[in-house]
Amino acid sequence: MITQTEFTLPAVPRGFHLITNQVLSNLPDLPETGLLHLFLKHTSAALTINENADPDVRTDMAYIFDQLIRENDSNYSHILEGSDDMPAHAKTSLCGNTLTIPITHHHLNMGVWQGIYLCEFRCHGGERKIVATVIG
Amino acid sequence: MITQTEFTLPAVPRGFHLITNQVLSNLPDLPETGLLHLFLKHTSAALTINENADPDVRTDMAYIFDQLIRENDSNYSHILEGSDDMPAHAKTSLCGNTLTIPITHHHLNMGVWQGIYLCEFRCHGGERKIVATVIG
Amino acid sequence: MITQTEFTLPAVPRGFHLITNQVLSNLPDLPETGLLHLFLKHTSAALTINENADPDVRTDMAYIFDQLIRENDSNYSHILEGSDDMPAHAKTSLCGNTLTIPITHHHLNMGVWQGIYLCEFRCHGGERKIVATVIG
Repeated sequence: MITQTEFTLPAVPRGFHLITNQVLSNLPDLPETGLLHLFLKHTSAALTINENADPDVRTDMAYIFDQLIRENDSNYSHILEGSDDMPAHAKTSLCGNTLTIPITHHHLNMGVWQGIYLCEFRCHGGERKIVATVIG
Repeated sequence: MITQTEFTLPAVPRGFHLITNQVLSNLPDLPETGLLHLFLKHTSAALTINENADPDVRTDMAYIFDQLIRENDSNYSHILEGSDDMPAHAKTSLCGNTLTIPITHHHLNMGVWQGIYLCEFRCHGGERKIVATVIG
Repeated sequence: MITQTEFTLPAVPRGFHLITNQVLSNLPDLPETGLLHLFLKHTSAALTINENADPDVRTDMAYIFDQLIRENDSNYSHILEGSDDMPAHAKTSLCGNTLTIPITHHHLNMGVWQGIYLCEFRCHGGERKIVATVIG
């Protein structure tokens, strides 16, 4: 059986944000065994799974991605939407905008240290929409 | 129900290419609700989702990836297939060779600015094969 | 039908490791048509698909990722678990901890040069757990 729901995350500041509980609160009852697929409908923000405990990991992730993809490179052509825009597109393809997570015994079967991150790469990204599809 | 089809994309120059319409033209009728899974059967090209409007984004993406992973690094060992080969492998793992996209009301449920990119990282990559699996 | 199994990979040294056969040996019989979903339950190791022939590719991949994400950057805050830890988190989000692979005629339908890699980003990562879900 396949069920699907679409929900909106409120705007957050640029950075990496733990959204596991927000995602869970928007899901229907999960099947005994299955998969949850999450799809972020944007091109300047991403979804990833990473460490759910120390907030310093999220701060360092933002720093690392800013080091990887610099702003204000004079070789960029796509500059009309702000200096954070083209780097945000590139970072999005590095992290990806989609996740698939196993469901076991009606719960997400992630590791104890794993959480779902919203990676907001724009300074003013606004609300972000997710399509959640459950197969089970 | 699961249906599966395999199709070939014609050779394109090195760079990022919008292939949403090419993918759609190779799919069977889509179910009311489901998932489309795309799998590129190669290790020096990738699939990603990014901005579908301004071609400058694709040009800048190619520039950014070339900056991230340099060619002709004297520390590379895998050099027999050309200077673009090892960087192409690394770029492929950064973007990934697989995508899963929700299907809603018989259509891909992507954001209005989202398109499917073929990331061709070789100078002469040739034809590229995709396996498309529809669950619904 | 959905079947699911969880298995453990033995500890490996830091680096990129071809694990296709190890994964296959832990799977149940595969359906005629379907998808295999793999989920690594960790935040400092990743799964990716890349070249299955020349071991130099794996060596160069490790070198490239070490160049991309440097250790011992004085701007990192998350440093208590060792100099390889924060870089391992970032590399994990670059590669991703999940893969979905098409199943055709009871076999994984990968390209002839494709293999499944375990990307071990810690110096002493220990055993790694994978949840494998088969839809078909």
